[in-house]
Amino acid sequence: MKKLTENILYQVIKKRPEQSYKGTYGRVLIIGGTKQFGGAAIMNALASVHSGAGLVTVATDPSNFTALHSHLPEAMVVNFNDYLIPYIQSHDVILIGSGLGDRLDLVKTTFAAVSAKQIMIVDGSALTLVAANHLVWPTSRLIITPHQMEWQRVSDVPISQQTFEALNSSARAHFNVKPIVVLKQFHTQIYTDNGSFELTIGGPYQATGGMGDTLAGIIAGFVAQFSNTSLDDNVLAAVYIHSAIADELAQQSFVTLPTQISAKLPYFMKKYAN
Amino acid sequence: MKKLTENILYQVIKKRPEQSYKGTYGRVLIIGGTKQFGGAAIMNALASVHSGAGLVTVATDPSNFTALHSHLPEAMVVNFNDYLIPYIQSHDVILIGSGLGDRLDLVKTTFAAVSAKQIMIVDGSALTLVAANHLVWPTSRLIITPHQMEWQRVSDVPISQQTFEALNSSARAHFNVKPIVVLKQFHTQIYTDNGSFELTIGGPYQATGGMGDTLAGIIAGFVAQFSNTSLDDNVLAAVYIHSAIADELAQQSFVTLPTQISAKLPYFMKKYAN
Amino acid sequence: MKKLTENILYQVIKKRPEQSYKGTYGRVLIIGGTKQFGGAAIMNALASVHSGAGLVTVATDPSNFTALHSHLPEAMVVNFNDYLIPYIQSHDVILIGSGLGDRLDLVKTTFAAVSAKQIMIVDGSALTLVAANHLVWPTSRLIITPHQMEWQRVSDVPISQQTFEALNSSARAHFNVKPIVVLKQFHTQIYTDNGSFELTIGGPYQATGGMGDTLAGIIAGFVAQFSNTSLDDNVLAAVYIHSAIADELAQQSFVTLPTQISAKLPYFMKKYAN
Amino acid sequence: MKKLTENILYQVIKKRPEQSYKGTYGRVLIIGGTKQFGGAAIMNALASVHSGAGLVTVATDPSNFTALHSHLPEAMVVNFNDYLIPYIQSHDVILIGSGLGDRLDLVKTTFAAVSAKQIMIVDGSALTLVAANHLVWPTSRLIITPHQMEWQRVSDVPISQQTFEALNSSARAHFNVKPIVVLKQFHTQIYTDNGSFELTIGGPYQATGGMGDTLAGIIAGFVAQFSNTSLDDNVLAAVYIHSAIADELAQQSFVTLPTQISAKLPYFMKKYAN
Repeated sequence: MKKLTENILYQVIKKRPEQSYKGTYGRVLIIGGTKQFGGAAIMNALASVHSGAGLVTVATDPSNFTALHSHLPEAMVVNFNDYLIPYIQSHDVILIGSGLGDRLDLVKTTFAAVSAKQIMIVDGSALTLVAANHLVWPTSRLIITPHQMEWQRVSDVPISQQTFEALNSSARAHFNVKPIVVLKQFHTQIYTDNGSFELTIGGPYQATGGMGDTLAGIIAGFVAQFSNTSLDDNVLAAVYIHSAIADELAQQSFVTLPTQISAKLPYFMKKYAN
Repeated sequence: MKKLTENILYQVIKKRPEQSYKGTYGRVLIIGGTKQFGGAAIMNALASVHSGAGLVTVATDPSNFTALHSHLPEAMVVNFNDYLIPYIQSHDVILIGSGLGDRLDLVKTTFAAVSAKQIMIVDGSALTLVAANHLVWPTSRLIITPHQMEWQRVSDVPISQQTFEALNSSARAHFNVKPIVVLKQFHTQIYTDNGSFELTIGGPYQATGGMGDTLAGIIAGFVAQFSNTSLDDNVLAAVYIHSAIADELAQQSFVTLPTQISAKLPYFMKKYAN
Repeated sequence: MKKLTENILYQVIKKRPEQSYKGTYGRVLIIGGTKQFGGAAIMNALASVHSGAGLVTVATDPSNFTALHSHLPEAMVVNFNDYLIPYIQSHDVILIGSGLGDRLDLVKTTFAAVSAKQIMIVDGSALTLVAANHLVWPTSRLIITPHQMEWQRVSDVPISQQTFEALNSSARAHFNVKPIVVLKQFHTQIYTDNGSFELTIGGPYQATGGMGDTLAGIIAGFVAQFSNTSLDDNVLAAVYIHSAIADELAQQSFVTLPTQISAKLPYFMKKYAN
Repeated sequence: MKKLTENILYQVIKKRPEQSYKGTYGRVLIIGGTKQFGGAAIMNALASVHSGAGLVTVATDPSNFTALHSHLPEAMVVNFNDYLIPYIQSHDVILIGSGLGDRLDLVKTTFAAVSAKQIMIVDGSALTLVAANHLVWPTSRLIITPHQMEWQRVSDVPISQQTFEALNSSARAHFNVKPIVVLKQFHTQIYTDNGSFELTIGGPYQATGGMGDTLAGIIAGFVAQFSNTSLDDNVLAAVYIHSAIADELAQQSFVTLPTQISAKLPYFMKKYAN
């Protein structure tokens, strides 16, 4: 298992070409945030926009529109109870699951509508819903971001046996297309077709609600915009930068809040663009 | 085609006369922001108020009132489903179209109510609605801010032929009053009766949702308040400052968010007032 | 007419006694903000709380509650369509009128309920409503904050004749209790029983919507808390500090937004407390 | 009565263990905030999250959801009119009472559902409701945060007789489980089984609405996360840090707003973690 280093940021974050437009940096659709967990979708969106996604639309409970726009007028909204299929089909990247509660219907609709050329990130409650309802994974390019318990549910591999080998064997059985797996734990591990990687930075100041929603949003922002580097590398860079910013904040701060990490993203990324 | 320089800011941004009032700096009416695209009207308003418009009223979907006021209690609001004609007639500057979705009715009402002495800025979805429905342009003083595709729709000049000559000939055919055209593209071009101008600053860190809404709001703020310089010069200065601020922010920041640009406006403008 | 100097701030803003409580610094009730003009009440409240009022309650349209709390969870709210009399009677200071639109009923209720020992500040649309409907002024201690046109309506003294003598004679005819008049104009004038005063600081960077709402809120905050100095001096100090902060901000900023002035209040006041 | 010193912060605030998760730092349920007093629950939550609680859920009037999320997407929400018992039972720490108005039903439900191994903090209007309705205190671990008048109501000890001895005797009669009492006054006193303590820092710049809601939120955040130090010490540290931050802010600021104190928490706490 390779250790992730700061080098991944230099590889992925590149100075943008002069002639480029919003569309160049991808269209992200976030599907999340029930009435009770609306903050999760807000944190997804803050992370995606601040990391540089071209256009971000949030499909969420309409009770969350105002709080989202209070943080981020840069994002567009759609009621996730409306007919979502045209939205799902017209975005480059779909992030589904943060604060999604028991909305199995939305997971089913998304899985049915997403195509092989799109990138889908599945986070949070969507993972539990997939496992509990034995949903068949779609053939889109897939990134999943489970905690250990969520990964156990999805993979049927108990936490105690979540070794690389068990994981790969399980993944083979459960997915049509092998996903990139971001297994969130003490030292987060990332499993890809091209090897597995371990994060050795970050710390317990990140142990606070919303940290995972922010990570999922950064992943969405990175895969949407850095189309010249591989999907694997984009995910690795997103995982790395999330904790690297937390480490920097933690020099001054006992706990590092998710919204603070997103606010730092454009400044932190600047250091690596060349 | 002349290149815009920083000099335009010294020409337009003048120290305010001591004896002056809110009314001296113009009344701006922003018409935009459906339920889904409310952020666009918020970004219009943030830009107008921070650039120094005297009074700003936002006619928008009522679901956007709270988020607008969370950003900007300085702005007043009106439900854009109410009878808008008195509002349209009593404001010096009308900015219509950012995040307006399919609200053709609002474009028609505004075009019918606006008078020759008012200044109207037409942005975003309003441009597409005008073109698709072959609306007749009103005789107000007119500024339009199309992307290249929007300009193709409005002017019937395909992107590949959007030269200065084609543009002028097209403009002649389509407008009663020749508009100032802000053609947003890699190097934004501005077409006026007194020549055409090219912006050579700005960069790809601006390629993010809401950038155009912010530009439209700055234009509204400038034309409302700088009544001693020509409309042309005010538009040129607004276009220039929008990218000049982005350039300054980009020294520290990978992507420059629209709300960050608006927040910088009063400080940046101060450097040029004399 | 005496010129106001910084000295008024040293006279009024005193270090707080060690043994004191929220109640020591007064209870302020703000009545303002229709659905369209909710920002006015928000700016009242921001100014009152940041200037140090002990407790602030905002009676406003319920559609404004969320935006107010997004700025200021420190304030309490009440629906101004509910039975307000107990609120009016239980607060030390009533500020009515900012963004009140055509709500004559609320002015009447307040005038009927307020008592001689309370302090009432009447601002904005309430002044126009009083004049248009020939309301009888109550016997509370009274501060009014008209623009010149509002003062003409209230006093029947045309702008061209708004001299000190005309004002005093008019005031005698119209009021049971002679109010402190803050006549907002190029050089704001303050008329009191103990003489008249002129403000010679401030500038055109303040010519922006909401500036008066912020001034009214600072007056409320000052009269609520500084009970050891006279009402006159508290009003003079509030008028002075409002423009002194704007002057300081204007060294860096082309236009000084009302919310920026409120945010600076606690820091600016600190310099004078001794 | 012992005087609290900065030493309590070194004792309680410890560097977090590397291997830890959100759950390690406790689940806090805040029950408060009617439609009129929603700001109180927002200030509770800001304090809890910024002090480092692992997960914070706010049970409040649904009209407060949006303003809460505008401040703090990190918190989850639940309508406090819904069936709350599962929420009460599944959280480590319950903070009830800030801005709770006359919602006796919620106090009764909470008292009935809370268990002996949970920690409950009772603040503000909940204390008045308990006293007025002679509720029997539950057997949970209990912290109460009365003002002197609230303590008189709860303990039947008049303010003039609120000595340590009277208090202890009263407490014995009224509580099944002796609570930690934070008696908020000029020099706040804390009564515990292991002695009584006096706060000698803080000042009149804290005499502003919402200060107590912020203190209650910090207490919740501390007891939720610092499980290696005693409940007594956690409460003492929370009381101390609340005023220590105010003292620091007051060096620059005439009045110290509750939201400013919460914003400083992570930075201030960092100085003591070792």
